[in-house]
Amino acid sequence: MALKAQALYDFIAEAGNNELTVKEGETLIITNQSIGGGWIEAQNSRGEVGLVPEDYIEFSKPVPSFPGAGTAAPAISVGNVAIPDLSIFDSYAPAAAPAQTQASNGNDPWSVWNADPSGGSNNNWASNPEGTQTGKSPADPWGSVSQGHPQAYQGPDIYPYPYLIDNTGAEDDEWDDEWDDMKSTGGYAESESGDAGAIQRGAHASSMKISLNKFPGFSKSGPELYLLCKQIAKGKEKLPIYIGEVGPVWSYPETQLDCVVADPKKGSKMYGLKSYIEYQITPNTTNRPVNHRYKHFDWLYERLLDKFGSAIPIPSLPDKQVTGRFEEEFIKMRMERLQGWMTRMCRHPVVSSSEVFQIFLTYKDEKDWKTGKRKAEKDETVGVMVFTTIEPEAADLDLVEVEQKCEQFNRFTKAMDDGVKEILTVGNEHWKRCTGPLPKEYQRIGKAFQNLSAVFNSSGYQGESTLTDAMTAAGKTYEEIAQMVAEQPKKDLHFVMETNNEYKGLLGCFPDTIGVHKAAIDKVKEADKLVATSKITPQDKVTMAKRVSTMSYALQAEMNHFHSNRIYDYNRVMQLYLEEQVKFYETIAAKLRQAHSQFTTM
Amino acid sequence: MALKAQALYDFIAEAGNNELTVKEGETLIITNQSIGGGWIEAQNSRGEVGLVPEDYIEFSKPVPSFPGAGTAAPAISVGNVAIPDLSIFDSYAPAAAPAQTQASNGNDPWSVWNADPSGGSNNNWASNPEGTQTGKSPADPWGSVSQGHPQAYQGPDIYPYPYLIDNTGAEDDEWDDEWDDMKSTGGYAESESGDAGAIQRGAHASSMKISLNKFPGFSKSGPELYLLCKQIAKGKEKLPIYIGEVGPVWSYPETQLDCVVADPKKGSKMYGLKSYIEYQITPNTTNRPVNHRYKHFDWLYERLLDKFGSAIPIPSLPDKQVTGRFEEEFIKMRMERLQGWMTRMCRHPVVSSSEVFQIFLTYKDEKDWKTGKRKAEKDETVGVMVFTTIEPEAADLDLVEVEQKCEQFNRFTKAMDDGVKEILTVGNEHWKRCTGPLPKEYQRIGKAFQNLSAVFNSSGYQGESTLTDAMTAAGKTYEEIAQMVAEQPKKDLHFVMETNNEYKGLLGCFPDTIGVHKAAIDKVKEADKLVATSKITPQDKVTMAKRVSTMSYALQAEMNHFHSNRIYDYNRVMQLYLEEQVKFYETIAAKLRQAHSQFTTM
Repeated sequence: MALKAQALYDFIAEAGNNELTVKEGETLIITNQSIGGGWIEAQNSRGEVGLVPEDYIEFSKPVPSFPGAGTAAPAISVGNVAIPDLSIFDSYAPAAAPAQTQASNGNDPWSVWNADPSGGSNNNWASNPEGTQTGKSPADPWGSVSQGHPQAYQGPDIYPYPYLIDNTGAEDDEWDDEWDDMKSTGGYAESESGDAGAIQRGAHASSMKISLNKFPGFSKSGPELYLLCKQIAKGKEKLPIYIGEVGPVWSYPETQLDCVVADPKKGSKMYGLKSYIEYQITPNTTNRPVNHRYKHFDWLYERLLDKFGSAIPIPSLPDKQVTGRFEEEFIKMRMERLQGWMTRMCRHPVVSSSEVFQIFLTYKDEKDWKTGKRKAEKDETVGVMVFTTIEPEAADLDLVEVEQKCEQFNRFTKAMDDGVKEILTVGNEHWKRCTGPLPKEYQRIGKAFQNLSAVFNSSGYQGESTLTDAMTAAGKTYEEIAQMVAEQPKKDLHFVMETNNEYKGLLGCFPDTIGVHKAAIDKVKEADKLVATSKITPQDKVTMAKRVSTMSYALQAEMNHFHSNRIYDYNRVMQLYLEEQVKFYETIAAKLRQAHSQFTTM
Repeated sequence: MALKAQALYDFIAEAGNNELTVKEGETLIITNQSIGGGWIEAQNSRGEVGLVPEDYIEFSKPVPSFPGAGTAAPAISVGNVAIPDLSIFDSYAPAAAPAQTQASNGNDPWSVWNADPSGGSNNNWASNPEGTQTGKSPADPWGSVSQGHPQAYQGPDIYPYPYLIDNTGAEDDEWDDEWDDMKSTGGYAESESGDAGAIQRGAHASSMKISLNKFPGFSKSGPELYLLCKQIAKGKEKLPIYIGEVGPVWSYPETQLDCVVADPKKGSKMYGLKSYIEYQITPNTTNRPVNHRYKHFDWLYERLLDKFGSAIPIPSLPDKQVTGRFEEEFIKMRMERLQGWMTRMCRHPVVSSSEVFQIFLTYKDEKDWKTGKRKAEKDETVGVMVFTTIEPEAADLDLVEVEQKCEQFNRFTKAMDDGVKEILTVGNEHWKRCTGPLPKEYQRIGKAFQNLSAVFNSSGYQGESTLTDAMTAAGKTYEEIAQMVAEQPKKDLHFVMETNNEYKGLLGCFPDTIGVHKAAIDKVKEADKLVATSKITPQDKVTMAKRVSTMSYALQAEMNHFHSNRIYDYNRVMQLYLEEQVKFYETIAAKLRQAHSQFTTM
């Protein structure tokens, strides 16, 4: 007798993972219960067979399974940033700390993984800072009403437009991605455990885990952790800031690090039942490729965010699930965006020279990688403590100047965020028109010319073939133009969209980064009061002023880095856009000239 | 005390005629009752003063006026073609005679004019054969369900699109136009009376008058009038048909007649209260300009239709009321279309050499014109009787061939009508896109680039003016492109639309012309039966066969004329279109190339 089950929730299969998309309420036949790892093989009414998470289905007769399967419905839990309990700062408020919103399956797979003897990985804590996150409307980090976010742009091959990502699917995907590595016995992922955040996660802490360790430094305890700490001089880590022509600048390496992300390869696990994609990353320093899966990038992102997020905006990774029509397109798109992210990281002098980034790019073997990973996860110079490593080679700034700069950067990044979003909105609409109604119209024009030409051909009148041939050719030319119009956005607008999309993500990080600075400034402003009430010593106040100056140098260096990259990026992308646009219009003109020449001159 | 009145119906003022647009139910103050001629000067609530037809308003207190004023509501009366009473042809049915539909004001102004001592002019009988008629859905002459008639195209300056003509307004205009001439004491129009149709119109014959004299020859009595008439050899009138390379052809003059319609001038009547436009027409034969008002063109059209309509499709004049935003545009558009109509008539060897056409183009003085007019109106060789003047220089055709040709022409003109309408539909949509959403989008792209550039300018970062200047220039370029896109249709699509619109009108005449031939063929097919029942003599039968052959030669000559003009027209308009399109795309490419050059090469 076939064992039947019913889908409790919608589940969207990830391409290439042997998964099966199911709709809530759908009846399935269980074809293999012994897959393990929370997966079950099932067949739907159309005869398609694939893996479905055990949690998502309810057996028609009870089946002894792992705890909690098929009971609770997935719930959206909203976790806000915890307010630090450094109660001496009674005016403390996390100025720009965004309300983090993220979905998690209430029937939490991690509550199982955490019970796993090999321990849990941290990757599941992945947050989606606003800017690149899609869906689930996070609070606008700029504090204004967000409108017209062109989330429809998902890359060049997506049609019809606008294409909204199914967030549930994305979450499932992440869940799967994690599971994949931890349960595997074949890969090197088994031992990828760690304890990156300071918080010990309990088996049922699903509503807390999301944001608590996202910015362990500042969201847990605010900049006061740094402002008042006994600074320990660490030997190796040192981030000097120089005064260059444009003002404070990071120390730039002589040759810029770069890398190529290429050659996506499908790997598989669980005897071929689960598959994943591995990318080859080749840095220009060693010219030796290393392999990484998306989840390793995600791990790197988390480390960089932990370590540098208070001082440097770390853009989030490209969306985990960019929904493409075909697996191939999806992989291509993800790779292109991972390349963009890596290039940006490589270009950053602080990020690219960090130990964690280097180990990611240059590990020699699995043992090397594992050692590097463990070390990175144990790094304590994270959050606001990163400022302890910053050493400006210039005189301290007074608070007024610090505040002015901070305000200026805030204004600029907010204004640029608006500008970038406007381009994305307009570009998205243009994309839709160019791939939708416009080519259809050119096609209809082309058809109309050809149809009339066909009628003319039926006239029985002698000697009009020159006209009808020419009209048919003109009609075909408009059909060609239709195709050119439809394909053009991939050749030019795509890059404008990608660049602006990247900047939207990057700019979305600034409110957090600037928020840390604003909070620090507020603390320093309170210093007199705190001294008066003996909450801090006069020496503490001097230290705080000096440290907020250091933070300001860091922010200025970072802004200057941002500006120089911005100028480079926009100059490049505008050039490319216009170059391709010129080619496009010239090609059309040439085609039409050719069509024109076929008519008789009178 | 101000005399008040209420508008009974909507009335739309004609541009430049000192008229006042009023809405049904609107309250007006009468400012001058003594204008005369059915007009009253009134002021609306916004203080605007102008003329309103007396019929259209109801005085707040009764005012002695002309009969019936302000009583009956305008009614639509449908007049069908009268079936001829040549009852010997019991199977006669007017195969393709269209049901004529036309609106007339129930409170009929003509019932007044007909009582006028100077007599009525014939111009008021103007019909609107399908093809150029707008509104009031005439029955489709092709006998199929008409769909997607792109009546929105009204010329290059009409925006927003689609612009539907208010037919009531158009009727009023016609009414006014007529009145204008008949009542005037200043112009030469007063004596423009005549008796073109054979029917004496009664004062209340408003539902009959519309179609009865449209095709006096064939709609009154069918082709049998010609088929069975005692042919009178007229000395002067003779229309030979030769056999040319392409088959039967009209006799073409050595030099083709041509004329230029130009220099529209405003004239006025009634002490400046009513105005009209006079056009200057200069034929290439005399090079001496003559002046004509629209209503004279309309008179000419009626004469040509009466005389040649059974054998030659006479396209109707451009719509009387092409609604333009400004008077200037309206006059320009009407002139352009009158030019098109005159050019087509000049190109026709039969039409252009006719006496009525010649007198229109070359009258020497008013007396000459009046004499010519009277003579033309008394011409009895009209309707199917025109075939009596046709002399094919070739052997008689047998009925099978006659029928085949007729069928072939019917198929072709129907198919071409479809093709032309498709182009008009597609072109109309393209026009809308090019003048509406597309330039708006380019403008938004341009603005978005400029806005981002402005933000960049506010960065405070040194040395990015090259980028911001270039981005601003690129943005401005897209704004220029927006304007180019919006203006382009006037430069190219306009001519495609005008040509196809003209052909739509011309093709709309073919069902009538072909219908006459089909009816004649049917008569000849009945001949044996009619001989058997002694309704006609055996000699009559021979005559009928010979005469239907003559009709077929005429139709074939006309088709060959049509084909040769069609090839010329479409070759010319397609060339012009593509030429302008090439220029358009090349200009855009050049502008973008210039914008591109302003970015720094990296």
